[in-house]
Amino acid sequence: MPSLNELKEIFKPKLIPISWEEQDNSLVLLDQSALPFETVFVKVRTPEEVAYAIKTMKVRGAPAIGITAAYGMITAILKSSSLEEAMGSLFKAKSVLDSSRPTAVNLSWATSHMLSLSKKLVEEGKVRRVEELLAELKAEARRIFDQELEAELQMGIYGLEKIDEGDTVLTQCNAGGLATGTGVGTALAPVKVAHALGIKVSVIAPETRPWLQGSRLTVYELMKEGIPVKLITDTAVGLVMFKGMVNSVMVGADRILSDGHVYNKIGTFKEAVIAKELGIPFYVLAPVTTFDLKNKVEDIRIEERDPNEVRTVRGVPIAPEGVEVYNPVFDVTPPKYVTAIITERGVIYPPFERNVRKTVGR
Amino acid sequence: MPSLNELKEIFKPKLIPISWEEQDNSLVLLDQSALPFETVFVKVRTPEEVAYAIKTMKVRGAPAIGITAAYGMITAILKSSSLEEAMGSLFKAKSVLDSSRPTAVNLSWATSHMLSLSKKLVEEGKVRRVEELLAELKAEARRIFDQELEAELQMGIYGLEKIDEGDTVLTQCNAGGLATGTGVGTALAPVKVAHALGIKVSVIAPETRPWLQGSRLTVYELMKEGIPVKLITDTAVGLVMFKGMVNSVMVGADRILSDGHVYNKIGTFKEAVIAKELGIPFYVLAPVTTFDLKNKVEDIRIEERDPNEVRTVRGVPIAPEGVEVYNPVFDVTPPKYVTAIITERGVIYPPFERNVRKTVGR
Repeated sequence: MPSLNELKEIFKPKLIPISWEEQDNSLVLLDQSALPFETVFVKVRTPEEVAYAIKTMKVRGAPAIGITAAYGMITAILKSSSLEEAMGSLFKAKSVLDSSRPTAVNLSWATSHMLSLSKKLVEEGKVRRVEELLAELKAEARRIFDQELEAELQMGIYGLEKIDEGDTVLTQCNAGGLATGTGVGTALAPVKVAHALGIKVSVIAPETRPWLQGSRLTVYELMKEGIPVKLITDTAVGLVMFKGMVNSVMVGADRILSDGHVYNKIGTFKEAVIAKELGIPFYVLAPVTTFDLKNKVEDIRIEERDPNEVRTVRGVPIAPEGVEVYNPVFDVTPPKYVTAIITERGVIYPPFERNVRKTVGR
Repeated sequence: MPSLNELKEIFKPKLIPISWEEQDNSLVLLDQSALPFETVFVKVRTPEEVAYAIKTMKVRGAPAIGITAAYGMITAILKSSSLEEAMGSLFKAKSVLDSSRPTAVNLSWATSHMLSLSKKLVEEGKVRRVEELLAELKAEARRIFDQELEAELQMGIYGLEKIDEGDTVLTQCNAGGLATGTGVGTALAPVKVAHALGIKVSVIAPETRPWLQGSRLTVYELMKEGIPVKLITDTAVGLVMFKGMVNSVMVGADRILSDGHVYNKIGTFKEAVIAKELGIPFYVLAPVTTFDLKNKVEDIRIEERDPNEVRTVRGVPIAPEGVEVYNPVFDVTPPKYVTAIITERGVIYPPFERNVRKTVGR
C-alpha cells in the first residue's frame, strides 16, 4: 500500500473541475450543468460570476462548492487598491457568495474562514499591502483544496484493502471527483487509486433518478479516467448483485450519525439491503466532517424536492400532467447493513455506536 | 366477498383498451404509444392495419396482443363473398398478424385458434354462409376477451382478502388493464376490485426504467379509474417501504416456474428482497397460463435489450455517447421472497414446489 506522498506522485486525476489560473488571475470551473454532452470550462473573475456559477449548478457537490467559494473570495480583491478597500470587498463578497446556495454549509464555512483569516492578517499587521493579502488568501484556498484532496486520497488508500484484482464495484449517484472538486472523490477514491496502481477494477453505475448523477456524471468521470464502467437503470441494481456481477458496494454519504445510520442519495438503502441479503460487503466512504454526532435518527427530516423532477427527464414529460409524486432526496440506511465506514482517519467497523466516536470524536 | 357474477355487475372498467364496434365492423384500439400524453383511439378494419398497430406498439402486453389478434382475424373476412374466399383470407391474415410480433406467444395462439375453429366450422358444415362464420368468430373473440376478463376479476376477488381498508399497495411496471386489454389487469386487479367495492385503497407506482411503464401507463390507468396513485422514482422503492408507507407489494409475472421462481420486469427482485426484510407481504398475480412447469431456473436466459433504451429517455440522451450498458428486461425472484401467488384458480402458498402443481397442474 502506497503512502499518501507516494500516491500523490503516482496519481494525477485527468479531470480537475476546479483550478486557479495564476497567469490571468481567474478561477477555472468545469461546467457540470453541460455534462456529459459537452466538456466546457468557464473562467470566472468576480464574486458575482462565481456566485452565478454556483447558483446555476455549474459547480455542485458540497466540497466542490466550498473550494469554489474560497477561491471566489480571492476574486473580490483582485482590483483593490488598499487593504481597507480589500476588506470591504471581502465583506461584500461573502454575502454575494453565501446567497448563491443558502443551505450549503461548506459554502458559508469557506467564506467565513477566508474573511476571518483576512481580518486577522490585517489586524495583526501580518500583511501590509493588498498583494501580500492576495498571496496569503491564494495559499489558503490552495490549502483547503489540498486538504480535501489528501483526505480523499487517504480514503482511497484505506479503501484499497477492500478491492481485489478484477473486482467490480457497484456505486450510487456521483460521489466522485466532480462532486468534491478535486478529481478524486469519496466513494470512487478506492477505485481510482486501484486503477492508478495498475490493479484491474471496474464499476457499475446506476443512473440514479431523478437527477441522473450516475449516467451524467459518474459514467463521464470514469470514462475520462479510463476506468471501465457499465451503466444500468436503477431497476437493475438487484439483478447485477444476484448474478454475481458485483464484488462490493461503495457509496458516499451526506450525513452519518454516531450510531452508524447513513443518509445518502435516494436509492442507497435498497443497495445496502440487497448487498447484505446476498453477502456482498457494503462500504460507505466519507470524510470525518460528514459525521453528525449530535442528532438522532428521529431528528432528521428527509428533504423532498420538486415533483416535476420525477414527472420529467431533462425537461421532457414522462408522466401524466398533475400526477401526485413523492420525491425524497435522501434515504437512510440503518447500521446493520453497513459493513464498514471508510474515512481519511481509518476504517470504522461495527459496533458503530462505540467505534465512530473513537475515530471521529471531536 | 362478491361472486364473479356480482362483481361483473358492480365493476365496469372506465377505460377498455380493446373493443369491437358492431355498428361499422371495426376494432377500436387505445393507442398506448401515445400514452399518457394523449388518449387516442384508433379504428382498424383490415389484418394489415391490426398488424401495424401491434408492430408500432399501439397495443402491448401479452394478453392484449392475443385479444387484438383474435379480433384481427375477423377483419379478414368482412368483405369475403364466399366461404372459400373467407378461408383463404383467414389463412393469409394469420401470417400477416403473426409476423407483426414474432415472439408473442399469445398472438400466434390466438390466430391459430381462430383459423382452426373456422376450418372446423366450415368442414363440419356448421356454417354455410360468410355471415354465419363471421357471427361465430365474433362470438369466439368475445369469449377470449371474456375469459381473460373473468380470470382477472377472479384474481381480483382472491386478492381482495390481502387488502385492508386504507391500504397502500406498491407495484412495479404495468400489470394493469392496459397490458391485458380488458381494463382490469393482473397485479392491479385486487386494487381495482377493492376500489369498486368502496374499500379505500391507494397505489405507489415506481416509474420502471428504462421503458417507464409505471409513469406512463400504471399512473395513467389508475388516475382514469379514480384510484389514488403516487409516482416515485425506482430509487425511492426502498424508502417508501422503510417509512411504512406500503402495506403490501403486488406485481405481475412473465413466467413462474414450478418451484416458485418468478420472472418479471426488471426491478421486481429488489422490491421482493426489501419487502421480506421489512416484513411486508409480497404477492405475485398471474393467470395459470403464466406457469412454466417444464423449465428450471438454470434453463432461463434473461433477455437483454438495446443499450440505447438506457442511454436515452424518450429519445433524449442522458449519458455520454458510447457508454457501455447492461440492459436486462427481466429479473428473477427466488421463491423464498414470495408470500403467495394469486391465480384465477386460487391463492398458492409455499411450499411452492408442492402447491404450484396442485393448483396449476395440467
